[in-house]
Amino acid sequence: MSARDNHQAEDLRRLRELLAEISDLNAATALMHWDQQTYMPEGGIELRSQQLATLSRLAHERLVSPELAELLERLEGSYDPSSEEGALVRVARRDHERAARLPSRLVAQMARAASEAEPVWVRARAASDWGAFAPHLERLLELKREAAEHLGYEEHPYDALLDLYEPGARKSRLEGLFEELKAGILPLLRSIAPGGRAEERSAPLVGDFDERAQEEFGRAVLTDLGYDWSRGRQDRVVHAFCIDLGGPQDVRITTRFDPRRVDTALFTSMHEAGHAMYEQGVSPSYARSPLAGGVSMGVHESQSRLWENLVGRSRAFWEHYYPLLQKAFPGSPLERTDLEGFYRAINEVKPSPIRIDADELTYNLHVLLRFELEVAMIEGRLAVPEIPEAWDAKMEEYLSVRPEKAAEGALQDIHWADGLFGYFPSYSVGNVLSAQLFAAAVRARPEIPDEIGRGNFGPLRGWLSENVYRHGRRYEPDELIERATGAPLSAAPYLGYLREKFGALYGCR
Amino acid sequence: MSARDNHQAEDLRRLRELLAEISDLNAATALMHWDQQTYMPEGGIELRSQQLATLSRLAHERLVSPELAELLERLEGSYDPSSEEGALVRVARRDHERAARLPSRLVAQMARAASEAEPVWVRARAASDWGAFAPHLERLLELKREAAEHLGYEEHPYDALLDLYEPGARKSRLEGLFEELKAGILPLLRSIAPGGRAEERSAPLVGDFDERAQEEFGRAVLTDLGYDWSRGRQDRVVHAFCIDLGGPQDVRITTRFDPRRVDTALFTSMHEAGHAMYEQGVSPSYARSPLAGGVSMGVHESQSRLWENLVGRSRAFWEHYYPLLQKAFPGSPLERTDLEGFYRAINEVKPSPIRIDADELTYNLHVLLRFELEVAMIEGRLAVPEIPEAWDAKMEEYLSVRPEKAAEGALQDIHWADGLFGYFPSYSVGNVLSAQLFAAAVRARPEIPDEIGRGNFGPLRGWLSENVYRHGRRYEPDELIERATGAPLSAAPYLGYLREKFGALYGCR
Repeated sequence: MSARDNHQAEDLRRLRELLAEISDLNAATALMHWDQQTYMPEGGIELRSQQLATLSRLAHERLVSPELAELLERLEGSYDPSSEEGALVRVARRDHERAARLPSRLVAQMARAASEAEPVWVRARAASDWGAFAPHLERLLELKREAAEHLGYEEHPYDALLDLYEPGARKSRLEGLFEELKAGILPLLRSIAPGGRAEERSAPLVGDFDERAQEEFGRAVLTDLGYDWSRGRQDRVVHAFCIDLGGPQDVRITTRFDPRRVDTALFTSMHEAGHAMYEQGVSPSYARSPLAGGVSMGVHESQSRLWENLVGRSRAFWEHYYPLLQKAFPGSPLERTDLEGFYRAINEVKPSPIRIDADELTYNLHVLLRFELEVAMIEGRLAVPEIPEAWDAKMEEYLSVRPEKAAEGALQDIHWADGLFGYFPSYSVGNVLSAQLFAAAVRARPEIPDEIGRGNFGPLRGWLSENVYRHGRRYEPDELIERATGAPLSAAPYLGYLREKFGALYGCR
Repeated sequence: MSARDNHQAEDLRRLRELLAEISDLNAATALMHWDQQTYMPEGGIELRSQQLATLSRLAHERLVSPELAELLERLEGSYDPSSEEGALVRVARRDHERAARLPSRLVAQMARAASEAEPVWVRARAASDWGAFAPHLERLLELKREAAEHLGYEEHPYDALLDLYEPGARKSRLEGLFEELKAGILPLLRSIAPGGRAEERSAPLVGDFDERAQEEFGRAVLTDLGYDWSRGRQDRVVHAFCIDLGGPQDVRITTRFDPRRVDTALFTSMHEAGHAMYEQGVSPSYARSPLAGGVSMGVHESQSRLWENLVGRSRAFWEHYYPLLQKAFPGSPLERTDLEGFYRAINEVKPSPIRIDADELTYNLHVLLRFELEVAMIEGRLAVPEIPEAWDAKMEEYLSVRPEKAAEGALQDIHWADGLFGYFPSYSVGNVLSAQLFAAAVRARPEIPDEIGRGNFGPLRGWLSENVYRHGRRYEPDELIERATGAPLSAAPYLGYLREKFGALYGCR
């Protein structure tokens, strides 16, 4: 071994050590967040937020440290880019640069602005008072525009923000994707719900559904899907989430229960289990390194959507599970509902002003609206006071519904109050990609749909593990998608899926 | 303000900042430990132990850092020793020196030796095989003797180890204390249990006791005692503990349930709540500083024992609670047992070879035995292969019982396998101090016993908060005891309490 090789091996060892330290600090932060949402006593909030600030700062200091910068500098180009070592250096460099480009003064300003904005947003939403929230949004936008300049971009400042969630994404490409979605979805929606109204189908989902029975049924389903309870757990929270605690060995999910609805906890659980199976499926050797975790928000969301919608809202799935569900809730409205009625109920198309209540067909129109407004806001074409009106107009245009008040319109989401701009498009990337990956899986293993109908998810999970999960962040998102599906991100499989499914459900194919 | 004052204020600010950072890292470690014992999935163990190692290392690096050393050096003598600032500098200096005196090589060796010894001890205990454990104990003793030399002592190497748990304690003083305990307890025990056998009284405690009812009753009692649920919570574990997560704002307890016994969970909970009320009672301004938490293991244990024994096993307490307990378990043996029978049952004296099964009267004899053996081990007067025989001989001498096998003798406790030497005496210091503090509280507020009989613990808790809890680590243990009780640590109140209580219970006053 040459002296140069020796130095290189030592640099790589030290890089791994430093990255593991950052991962461990982030895992402590993640555990503190998890605990805060699940079990922490209320009196601990202030103390916890100070502890979180310290731990985040220590992780950030390491990520932007000159030592890490120099190691990455020296190791740059030392490894075949297609090797694991090459990927580690590339991903670490990306994380380092994203963090190092933002002045710590700006990071602190953004954190403070968001923490000041959030409680104001809560009150403003309760009172439907856009004016109260507006100055905070103004400030956050200003800081985000500044951040975009520091982060850098080739085409458009919005690209710099997108890139935080979707590495390599461009506004220009997303515009094309959304145009395709709009052109495919709007005619379908109009034939199903002319004037924004469709037949009511979801009545059988409402009734008294014992929470313990819901929990038991959900756990059985998640076990069948392949969520590994020996490396995870499920707890109750107000807003469901999935969180990894440093590697695929501990990936936890949460859910919420509505005793009046049979579908809330179940689909929430399948959604979070989709995220979790992705993280659990990452190569165990990537634990405590930046290669662990999902490669982008969009790919992550593709997995929650795939398991929630393409599996969980499919007829094949319920051919197996519906008799079991009926048995789990004796005396409920399900007793008087046949499989077809239930399948129609969980796939009801119902334009609503509220994104989180949206069905599969209308969901992307909510995202499109936010994407268009965000771009206009970042460009300065849309002034903050005019947002509610612009929002309502687009809502009417796309969904033929009009929010009755700002709480149901531009104030409905927490994202902007948290300073998240460029985040919404990932939801649509996830939807689109869920169908593209599912189609590729079925091409490779044609038995998948039949096996789902038997409650056997092994072939689907196996294909996803092999082609997506195990790689973690090893490949760029675009490369991962190409490798897995043989094509770049494309709306065609998703639109085909929507047309076939909802065409059949509403007789308008 | 002079330039010197300015520097001093800046040094103090930086000291507080650094200490808060250490506290936050320790709190993250504490949360990881809590999670590991309560909710962590089994698959996360290996990952968690690596994360714990990193976080502990980062805290330790800060504690021994030259920056902290220099700040303490400069601030030494700057503040009135009786002021809070003076106390902060003194306590931080103590923690710093304890940590800095041990070479990190030795710290790592001790950690490795303990982590290797523990699983061996588990197997050795299961097989009652002292020989398997002996080489590990040998190694741990050797490292501990070395540690004592590094830590330093005036009289005896054992003092250096004691000081880790009981700041300022000396073997020579403890010998006097234990002589007094032995002289007071042995004659009492022999008149109650001649030849190691006493009348069986605990039968009414055994039966079917619904766990949910146990939990509910226990929670109600803890609420009455004054455990603050808004700054804590209770979870189930195999081995109960109390843990603070960085300050009095989040102090959690755990317990275990035995559905066949009515007393296990309740007294375990009261014991842990005693620890927790101490930590919750610390001045909130001490959060995130080394002034938070208990001043010594002995004072900490005095609070668990006080609430478990002096309150929880008193007749006054059960005058109020026994009718409620009977109502909570309809159809149980309690229905056929009167208050006096129950009071006799929970105070049964029954010499046993097992420390954790010991009653109030015999408990200190178990500690005495360990103290004597530990001193002999550290001095090298007792060779490791001879420990079981020495153990059994002392057990016979003090308790008139003989362990049937090493699992019930020298292998019963995990402490030595964890490298804990000098720790056991704190249990007896706690017992002794619990009675001394209780007596002082009753002198100051004579209504306390009657109020306990009414289920009102406010006066007792109020006195303890005022005289012990709120001070955290502000005073040295000896000073705290003197301030609170007007006298140094003394066995007299404890022996008086035992004589009166057990004399009356067994008619041998």
